[in-house]
Amino acid sequence: MDQQIVLDHGTGARLSRELVEFVVEVLADVYLGEMEDSAILPPLDGALAMTTDSFVVDPPFFGNGDIGKIAVCGTVNDLAVAGAQPRYLTLAMILESGLPLAQLHRALESVRDTAREAGIKIVAGDTKVVGAGEADGIFLNTTGVGVFTSPPKRMKDVTVGDKILLSGPIGDHTIHLLSVREGLGFESNVLSDCAPLNGMIDAVRGAVPESAVRSMRDVTRGGLNAVLHEYASAVGHALRVEEEALPISFETAMAADMLGINPINCANEGCLALFVAPEHADDVLRTLRAHPYGKGAVVIGEVTERPDPVVELTGKDGRVSEVEELQGAELPRLC
Amino acid sequence: MDQQIVLDHGTGARLSRELVEFVVEVLADVYLGEMEDSAILPPLDGALAMTTDSFVVDPPFFGNGDIGKIAVCGTVNDLAVAGAQPRYLTLAMILESGLPLAQLHRALESVRDTAREAGIKIVAGDTKVVGAGEADGIFLNTTGVGVFTSPPKRMKDVTVGDKILLSGPIGDHTIHLLSVREGLGFESNVLSDCAPLNGMIDAVRGAVPESAVRSMRDVTRGGLNAVLHEYASAVGHALRVEEEALPISFETAMAADMLGINPINCANEGCLALFVAPEHADDVLRTLRAHPYGKGAVVIGEVTERPDPVVELTGKDGRVSEVEELQGAELPRLC
Repeated sequence: MDQQIVLDHGTGARLSRELVEFVVEVLADVYLGEMEDSAILPPLDGALAMTTDSFVVDPPFFGNGDIGKIAVCGTVNDLAVAGAQPRYLTLAMILESGLPLAQLHRALESVRDTAREAGIKIVAGDTKVVGAGEADGIFLNTTGVGVFTSPPKRMKDVTVGDKILLSGPIGDHTIHLLSVREGLGFESNVLSDCAPLNGMIDAVRGAVPESAVRSMRDVTRGGLNAVLHEYASAVGHALRVEEEALPISFETAMAADMLGINPINCANEGCLALFVAPEHADDVLRTLRAHPYGKGAVVIGEVTERPDPVVELTGKDGRVSEVEELQGAELPRLC
Repeated sequence: MDQQIVLDHGTGARLSRELVEFVVEVLADVYLGEMEDSAILPPLDGALAMTTDSFVVDPPFFGNGDIGKIAVCGTVNDLAVAGAQPRYLTLAMILESGLPLAQLHRALESVRDTAREAGIKIVAGDTKVVGAGEADGIFLNTTGVGVFTSPPKRMKDVTVGDKILLSGPIGDHTIHLLSVREGLGFESNVLSDCAPLNGMIDAVRGAVPESAVRSMRDVTRGGLNAVLHEYASAVGHALRVEEEALPISFETAMAADMLGINPINCANEGCLALFVAPEHADDVLRTLRAHPYGKGAVVIGEVTERPDPVVELTGKDGRVSEVEELQGAELPRLC
């Protein structure tokens, strides 16, 4: 375990095979593959969901998580917010020559533990090795397949009057990672929110009629700002959000202020935005708050009648201003 | 198009969205997604195949292909050799800041053209951007889902007496890439064999009874050597190969000799190994040779009765020697 990844781990011969065996051994019971080139998997009865994400998190290991956990959460959450049940996951790794095998082991343990919690199976994997300086330690890709046991949730099903809910605070993940990356000292006070959200989503969907939750999105890259603009465009109506309702922890607000960034632009890894029929908003809120990952759930706004695809913020003084879509968030590699 | 990839292309805000729109526009008719987080896909009736591969090809653009073509072929071929019909493909990109947009465009056009040829749809994508020096230009990941319309082909179905066939020459892809990479001057004489093999595989399966082809493998990383050792281990019998039967072009043999490498250890991207019931070997050979990607098909050996998982080579002088499994191939980043 004091070994390092070397180029020969990536060339398809004996060392490659040993690396694959190492990966499969760590993944243990969440690994469903058969070590053939393609996994052979039981049929899925229904329409399929499929999504892919590469992860280039910097730093790859942080206070309460790592790139392995994020890589499983990111893809599980993308399937779950579409309304699908996550089933099959692939795991591909690009490893930089010199990476300590112990770090790979740690990331794989996180993959295993998070896949277990989310109830998804790893069905196929891939390892590639590049030279020192040709990548940055460890990059992961996960691709997930889910099955729809009820109709998919689509952005276009959102309608005027729908309430906009968040399952918890925004900005924590970004502040935590920036703090670890830059040595700012906030990282023990503000933890990443990284979590698989499919269990909480199942709880919500079980508590209200199927049509009550119109659409969901996990608030990741681009932050709440990007999500709201995406929905405003898709729905063709202004979304109005109350500044005072935005869930931002005291420490995160302070740190963000110091860093000159706005939490609504910050990437998260376990924050769920929900668009909910107004008559069911209370029930959804109650169900979210009863779940460990939704304790900080709040209603932050609603879809208005105004037929313009914009995002409005009602300030603490009652004045309404327009939130501009960012050109770039200037905070790379948080997921 | 004289623009470059910048970090803001990866941060989830407006530039990210524009990059995704650019990708989808180039992919055109092979793109099936809906720009939601997960693609929503028609059900597949049968057991599923799933496989993933990351591609770190160096150089990413070469004489008769590029990383985009390889990324589609690699995953399509992994599905097809398992006996599945390739259906859905995801495409994830890790782009180094500074990459010319024109290069990305070129790689995406290859993805599109190859997906068209293979009859597979791109259903979801992802783009991540890292800083200059944190990756090497462009890394791709493709993950594919296929459906089994007849029983999967498994290694363990190979049995004593089966003939081992190759669809064409070995070593060309490696020699071509090394030549481009190192400026050796062979690259116009020896082209990469990179090709989607599912059409040829369908032709073979249509020409003989289903059980005639026991198992198939595309001969990629680790070369023929790795494939033969993998099968010898799975089958538990010695595989014997005739040195004189190995399809190696004159130019590739010369170049390999000069470089001190053996074509049986070289990565290929369009070479198919088939294990075939002896009474159907001639029919399979004829069908392969009638296909543009199988003109150089040959029988190279067979599965012997010897109950040891080894690979034997019968030399031109009739002497039998054992082929050792390589520790590493020492030729990184050919796929």
